[in-house]
Amino acid sequence: MRVVSRAVTDESRVDGEETPIAKRILIGEPLTSEKLDEQLLPKKMALPIFASDALSSVAYAPQELLMILLIGGTALLTLSPWVAVAVVTLLVVVVLSYRQLIKAYPSGGGDYEVASKNLGEVPGVIVAAALLVDYVLTVAVSVASGVDNIISALPELNPFRVEIAVGFVILIVIVNLRGVREASSVFAIPTYLFIGSVGVMIVVGLARTLLGDAPHASSADYGVQAESLTQAALILLVLRAFSSGCSALTGVEAVSNGVPAFRMPKIRNAQTTLTLMGGIAIVLFAGLTILALISGVHYAENPCHLIGFDCANNPQPSLMAQVAAATFGMNSIPFFIIQAATACVLLLAANTAFNGFPLLGAVLARDGYAPKALNTRGDRLVYSNGMIILGIVAIGVLIVYQANLTTLIQLYIIGVFVSFSLGQIGMVKHWRRVLRGLKELTPEAAKQQSAAIERRSAVSGLWINSVGAAMTVLVLLIVTITKFTHGAWLVFIAIPILAVLMIGVNRYYRDVEHEIRMDETVHFGSSGDVAIVLVNRLQKPVMKAIDYALAANHQKTLAVHVAITDEDAAKLQKEWAEHDMPIPLVIIDSPYRTYTSPVSTFIKKYRENNGSAVVTVYLPQFIVGHWWESILHNRRSRRLAHQLMLVHGVSITLVPWLLDSSEVIYGRRSRPLPGQQRGGQPVAEVTAHRPKKTPPGSAS
Amino acid sequence: MRVVSRAVTDESRVDGEETPIAKRILIGEPLTSEKLDEQLLPKKMALPIFASDALSSVAYAPQELLMILLIGGTALLTLSPWVAVAVVTLLVVVVLSYRQLIKAYPSGGGDYEVASKNLGEVPGVIVAAALLVDYVLTVAVSVASGVDNIISALPELNPFRVEIAVGFVILIVIVNLRGVREASSVFAIPTYLFIGSVGVMIVVGLARTLLGDAPHASSADYGVQAESLTQAALILLVLRAFSSGCSALTGVEAVSNGVPAFRMPKIRNAQTTLTLMGGIAIVLFAGLTILALISGVHYAENPCHLIGFDCANNPQPSLMAQVAAATFGMNSIPFFIIQAATACVLLLAANTAFNGFPLLGAVLARDGYAPKALNTRGDRLVYSNGMIILGIVAIGVLIVYQANLTTLIQLYIIGVFVSFSLGQIGMVKHWRRVLRGLKELTPEAAKQQSAAIERRSAVSGLWINSVGAAMTVLVLLIVTITKFTHGAWLVFIAIPILAVLMIGVNRYYRDVEHEIRMDETVHFGSSGDVAIVLVNRLQKPVMKAIDYALAANHQKTLAVHVAITDEDAAKLQKEWAEHDMPIPLVIIDSPYRTYTSPVSTFIKKYRENNGSAVVTVYLPQFIVGHWWESILHNRRSRRLAHQLMLVHGVSITLVPWLLDSSEVIYGRRSRPLPGQQRGGQPVAEVTAHRPKKTPPGSAS
Repeated sequence: MRVVSRAVTDESRVDGEETPIAKRILIGEPLTSEKLDEQLLPKKMALPIFASDALSSVAYAPQELLMILLIGGTALLTLSPWVAVAVVTLLVVVVLSYRQLIKAYPSGGGDYEVASKNLGEVPGVIVAAALLVDYVLTVAVSVASGVDNIISALPELNPFRVEIAVGFVILIVIVNLRGVREASSVFAIPTYLFIGSVGVMIVVGLARTLLGDAPHASSADYGVQAESLTQAALILLVLRAFSSGCSALTGVEAVSNGVPAFRMPKIRNAQTTLTLMGGIAIVLFAGLTILALISGVHYAENPCHLIGFDCANNPQPSLMAQVAAATFGMNSIPFFIIQAATACVLLLAANTAFNGFPLLGAVLARDGYAPKALNTRGDRLVYSNGMIILGIVAIGVLIVYQANLTTLIQLYIIGVFVSFSLGQIGMVKHWRRVLRGLKELTPEAAKQQSAAIERRSAVSGLWINSVGAAMTVLVLLIVTITKFTHGAWLVFIAIPILAVLMIGVNRYYRDVEHEIRMDETVHFGSSGDVAIVLVNRLQKPVMKAIDYALAANHQKTLAVHVAITDEDAAKLQKEWAEHDMPIPLVIIDSPYRTYTSPVSTFIKKYRENNGSAVVTVYLPQFIVGHWWESILHNRRSRRLAHQLMLVHGVSITLVPWLLDSSEVIYGRRSRPLPGQQRGGQPVAEVTAHRPKKTPPGSAS
Repeated sequence: MRVVSRAVTDESRVDGEETPIAKRILIGEPLTSEKLDEQLLPKKMALPIFASDALSSVAYAPQELLMILLIGGTALLTLSPWVAVAVVTLLVVVVLSYRQLIKAYPSGGGDYEVASKNLGEVPGVIVAAALLVDYVLTVAVSVASGVDNIISALPELNPFRVEIAVGFVILIVIVNLRGVREASSVFAIPTYLFIGSVGVMIVVGLARTLLGDAPHASSADYGVQAESLTQAALILLVLRAFSSGCSALTGVEAVSNGVPAFRMPKIRNAQTTLTLMGGIAIVLFAGLTILALISGVHYAENPCHLIGFDCANNPQPSLMAQVAAATFGMNSIPFFIIQAATACVLLLAANTAFNGFPLLGAVLARDGYAPKALNTRGDRLVYSNGMIILGIVAIGVLIVYQANLTTLIQLYIIGVFVSFSLGQIGMVKHWRRVLRGLKELTPEAAKQQSAAIERRSAVSGLWINSVGAAMTVLVLLIVTITKFTHGAWLVFIAIPILAVLMIGVNRYYRDVEHEIRMDETVHFGSSGDVAIVLVNRLQKPVMKAIDYALAANHQKTLAVHVAITDEDAAKLQKEWAEHDMPIPLVIIDSPYRTYTSPVSTFIKKYRENNGSAVVTVYLPQFIVGHWWESILHNRRSRRLAHQLMLVHGVSITLVPWLLDSSEVIYGRRSRPLPGQQRGGQPVAEVTAHRPKKTPPGSAS
């Protein structure tokens, strides 16, 4: 609820300008005004918005699962249903756990909030670091998989894999920078198309199997060069397959970060959406895995290990493409629909990271773990910076790993399970604290029905999250063991570095906060007041600065010229006399042709001779229209300002002079900036006598 | 002559600080004070300083000359004495021409000054652009040749050719950035060592030849795969060899840029030094060419065209190394001395470009063809930027051309001869103008002896420079024809682009100058004076800003808080009352969480309601110690300052707050900055009543 009218003085109160509000919903900003309720998301829109990340993982998870098993030969594929069941079970547990998290922390803070509130600062920061790494990898993995599916449909694009992937990231960055209004229908179409078309494919495929006409994949006839494995290596391989299959879980947490965007009752609606999303993910994941096994898809880590496949000239089609081709026929219309929907939903998943990354940055800035500037909401620039950083890092990752999905997946799920695990452990602590709180109630209160309900809910929450915590920690261990040497070590370096940086930023802000805190030594009473206008040549900007200095009516106003050459100084003195300037001109020699040092020496000597005055230095400042003009102006004045600010008692007054070019440029901007009027327009009338000032503070 | 005391008011006059002065000599700053005369260069020191560039060209010119002839087979080498004689003749003409230039333009402006004064703006700017390109190529060619000679002595370094070259450029940049006091003895030792050792080698080599024991180069026995040439191609090849040999002339112009650094009589001393340098260059060039022919050096453009040479595993030793090895024996001590001296003098030549480049930049800035900031002499930062730019471009060129001397030479001498030609043409015009001036003298004056001397001198100058102009233009044509397709086209693109940029900068400055010129519309008389202190939270920096605003005693002083959240606003109001703040607090709502827009709207409404006041906005500004701290501070305040400056009537007062870290850092600097005292130290005493102000202007 915003208090709109509030005034301490009789100054008229002023509202801010109007800006479009719709897009804020997508980035999860807490909505505080009832009139915004119509902007909130109904479930049928919330599902595609928050589900594109989670559902798109179905596009690569079965493929990666089966691929790892195939390293041990086709015989191992018989184990795949069991591995898939383990993944589905984990998915059920994680969905149930997040239902609890949504109930307990509906503010949209997600795992970061849970971990920092319940486990303390370090786990919270680690979760944040893991999430940041994850956003980068979400972009990289989703785009790589999307391009993989495009190439499966159009193999002639294979030589440009990396270029296409980088191009898509750049496209997403541009779309986000231009601030396209992300209407949820944009998200809804490809997501529902993906769910629908893959669902139809599963139904058709299974129906054909039941009718005795089982689909047959193109790779089913290829033999496989298998490694011979020891018992231990076999177990490790199965665990690795499980780890890769767990990539199906990425993105499940998205709903918990978006609770504030749901319609009332928010918690119930968010929980329902999460459950629905989990159900769909399970159906698609299980269905795709079964169909792949039925149609005999052989997807190899190294396509050259497929006996009979011309790996030199052809890209290996994705599992999704092989299943679609087996079910509907290669290059049929449904085949292309499925590939297009898959690619779209994967690119949408990448797009969501560009909303989540700056939002997390803002939350971290609010808590003092990231530069405060990131918390300046409503400033498009801040989001732009975050998006550009995310884009550049993601492009870097895509280039280094050559947009290779299998390699990227190795890095991906570590971060996810770090935040899952710490979030679930935090939830366990949360419920235990709730239960302790209930125990400490007075006997009367404890007997009330509401307390009993609360107690039951907390106990069930504790159970669910305990199981969730145990399983996610176990999976984190498995993932770490099986993936560490396959590239995941990089994530184990990146997360601590980020976490240490964040804690460093926090400590720094804390120290500064302490340094500038009000204490009993703070008093007013600086006295003495002299204004110095730096004059190089007698030109309009300087005249404006002198005019403003006169208007401010300082106790003493001086013009100071630093004499680099005698000729300039003499000319200025002459002009000064000619124009009958109203303030005295002081000329300081600068035998070594520097500006700062003579001025600062002059100020220091002045303060020695005249008592410690407050010295206001007036500097004209050009306001320019083109970026390149700033190379041609203001350098000296900026350096001078920076250096003079180090002198005791000095403050710098910048008097703007808007060059013609600035008027042209800012006038052209789509959103006009304030202050189109030319600065420094000469005032026609000369006021000879100024009114005496009233004492400060009495003005209101 | 500097006028040291000058004061318009009774304000104490202040001198600038002391800075070391010695290094300025090297960069050719006009010296105006007699006491600096002892710092001026005696001829024996001036020679090595200005000659390293010109003499070092001897290290590669004979090699490139013979190499081009060898493309046509060993038979063509019989033409080499004639080509060498042509180069020597040209060298004599150019030296004589520059003696005239020194006499006529002793200010150190060189070809740029001559061309722009006599031929107009465009030729002047073209000369400047050619010189800038040349500085880059001087660095690249000298370093490449230096590394070549090092590798000739230590062939195992061959795989790291580019890395070593880049390393040397970085080293030179660092040495120059750190501002090592370039005592001329540093230049003197390697230059004299180079002259001496190569001289001794020539004497020894010729003496052995006369005694019948002619030196025999290692490559003398290699056959050469020659192209069969038509008559026309043969002529072209000879012209190309001449063009490459002309690289011996690079650096001759250096003395004309350094005349002000010579002891009195400056012109005579400079001319003598130039003549001496020319003589030494001719002796070394001719001697080396003769020795190379006697010892039978075969140096091929493509080393694999040498029959019998294992080009796959060995680098081709430089001509200097082959002659030294033939004369003194491979890996003998004199051999290493010569290679070391050659490498050193070449690196010194590269170093001189790092002095010349920023100096030319300053001259261009003075004339308005480059950003004015470059003319801020005495500011180390400016020179640093120039040096870093030169270093980066030179490194880029070295990497692109793989530090290949032969390829770089193709680009090199175009720029040199562009400036030679335009400079000489300018001199021709100069002398003709002088002669016209003498003709217009009254008959009495014309009869005086001094006029006759002047006339004779002008006539001889006209003759010499006419020959010089004709020959350099001819050579420029030859160089262009023979080198254009070998890479020189790049220079023909770079020079016009630079020239157009410079003219654009000039036009821009002219327009701005016109825009801000004083005219009759300029009057004083802005009235109304309100100070706005932006308050976010009640902290020391804000208190200091309020204190300074009170000290300036504005007609009205307001504190303004932009309410992003109600909690913060309420808290601030409470604290405001608690601390009994002496100015009223205005709270502005910002429903869309922006800062700039509500403040600028407030200011505009205030000016509507209260008449067009001068509004001074006080912004606390953190002064930090580490670069990374600026990421964590001031972003919002900087944006706010920039945007509010667009509002009519607003000026911005930055009130510095020095954080502890800034004290630590600036305290550690070798040259302490002004103003070590902590800003914002609270003043102990509260002044309840302020003195009435005196009217402005009467204070002095």
